Amino acid sequence: MPTDLVAALDIGGTKIAGALVDGQGRILLRVQRPTPAREDGDTVMRAVEEVIGELTAGEPWGEVRAVGIGSAGPVDASAGTVSPVNVPGWRGYPLVERVRAAAGGRPVELVGDGVAMTAAEHWQGAARGHDNALCMVVSTGVGGGLILNGALHPGPTGNAGHIGHISVDLDGDPCPCGARGCVERIASGPNIARRALEAGWLPGPDGDTSAAAVALAARAGDPVAIASFERAAQALAAGIAATATLVEIDIAVIGGGVAMAGDVLFAPLRRALRDYATLSFVSRLTVTPALMGTDAGLVGAAAAALRAYPDATVGRLRPAVNR
Amino acid sequence: MPTDLVAALDIGGTKIAGALVDGQGRILLRVQRPTPAREDGDTVMRAVEEVIGELTAGEPWGEVRAVGIGSAGPVDASAGTVSPVNVPGWRGYPLVERVRAAAGGRPVELVGDGVAMTAAEHWQGAARGHDNALCMVVSTGVGGGLILNGALHPGPTGNAGHIGHISVDLDGDPCPCGARGCVERIASGPNIARRALEAGWLPGPDGDTSAAAVALAARAGDPVAIASFERAAQALAAGIAATATLVEIDIAVIGGGVAMAGDVLFAPLRRALRDYATLSFVSRLTVTPALMGTDAGLVGAAAAALRAYPDATVGRLRPAVNR
Repeated sequence: MPTDLVAALDIGGTKIAGALVDGQGRILLRVQRPTPAREDGDTVMRAVEEVIGELTAGEPWGEVRAVGIGSAGPVDASAGTVSPVNVPGWRGYPLVERVRAAAGGRPVELVGDGVAMTAAEHWQGAARGHDNALCMVVSTGVGGGLILNGALHPGPTGNAGHIGHISVDLDGDPCPCGARGCVERIASGPNIARRALEAGWLPGPDGDTSAAAVALAARAGDPVAIASFERAAQALAAGIAATATLVEIDIAVIGGGVAMAGDVLFAPLRRALRDYATLSFVSRLTVTPALMGTDAGLVGAAAAALRAYPDATVGRLRPAVNR
Repeated sequence: MPTDLVAALDIGGTKIAGALVDGQGRILLRVQRPTPAREDGDTVMRAVEEVIGELTAGEPWGEVRAVGIGSAGPVDASAGTVSPVNVPGWRGYPLVERVRAAAGGRPVELVGDGVAMTAAEHWQGAARGHDNALCMVVSTGVGGGLILNGALHPGPTGNAGHIGHISVDLDGDPCPCGARGCVERIASGPNIARRALEAGWLPGPDGDTSAAAVALAARAGDPVAIASFERAAQALAAGIAATATLVEIDIAVIGGGVAMAGDVLFAPLRRALRDYATLSFVSRLTVTPALMGTDAGLVGAAAAALRAYPDATVGRLRPAVNR
């Protein structure tokens, strides 16, 4: 019988997932809706409320003590608002207040989706047992989060670990964020594909021009495809090395679609890391694939809620100390 | 009468300073020796022991409960060793053990000099009252340290905040550390001067080719000198923005000789920061000059010792909570 139950929401531009998660990170009930991302803010919120409604319908809801939200960013945990880039109807939207109302007044913890994924990898995945870790998602965008001194470091607004938008090429290409040469501008899936196409890579007969198709071509030895992944790896290495040099992490965990390329990404990444992580105290830094898959958002939102609202009698189950 | 006395050592390539510091950060006794940096390791240690000997000679020594060391890096706080670049006789040198012996077995806390300066600025200086801050020294090198969640973040080895060796130009000039395009390689005093000279700046009749001389020329309107400071400011801005994006700092404090250039550095730095710190959660980031001057190393080493070895009866004076 679960003693430490929380509700979790994973809110992105494509889907809204909800779950009841116990103190061991087991998902007891799972609900999902498409995100009506092009509709007005209240319509998007109704989809969230429908998800919460299904979670509250069953008997276990009575034991839920808090709700954790991992949301596409930017978020502002201090204000309780979200402004996801891919959900234009939500700008400074008071998500925490609305979710609290829909969840019968239970306390709500909001973090960015990169922070949620990090909480999950630290609790149950590839960063387990590491007191200082960077976890990343390399996909359509590049996000991340930090474990410092054995605990999640969401930062005051829940956005810490935003490695996709640090500049590793200060004179580089303009990034949609307004800066130049950001890690995401070089290493995201769409940028890996764009760079390969610009350099003359020809997609196969299926016409697939995704980063996954570039990865297949690289695995088959296409030098242009290999070079595009190598450039992405170089940018990721510079960003990971910068993070390690700043906060002394000893492991970087990488998930997301681009990480599915396996050695096509990880082999040049490990080589490039030796070029950028040069100081003695970062020389033992390792990179490794994420383990939590698509559940990371829900499990991590649950971990954040358990961490923020520990129950005195079951505090030993808190993710930050349950290693 | 001081109730919370510690000894502090500030060890650099030029001088070894020591002090007795009370719980309010007041320096009660100060001692200094030149660093015999070109001698063997034991000769350097004898200079440290002479400094400690003068501190132990007086009556207040009996009340000293711990020793804090801020040392030129790299340091390894977990091993208790130091390997300062400018003191070749010390490589993996067991400084903590030796100081403990010279200090009558008192506990010793070791941090890098950038971390020490940060502890001082947070306790008594420009970062006071800020829960999340980056403090930097821009001088012959570029160093720094971090305050996170209201407390010093030295990292496991005492080196966190090493902003001088994060790459902001991944294809840039080789840095002596082995990487490319590091902040220090672009923004340190010697690199500001080198770039100005390479671009045709002519020193004045006194032949001074230091960054301070370039700053004077910039203040007088010399466009080459101005451009060299602007490039340094751009690299510092990219590094500071990266730090804020990763760990959510709200203030960057800058000390060291190059910061003495005043508006010649700070005006282009504040402009460039708007170009690189673009995400909503870092848009309120400010930069400000350091306040602690040359005492920062000693006061910060004392702060680190007070933090690491709080006395139960006087714990309220700990720097991390004395804000």
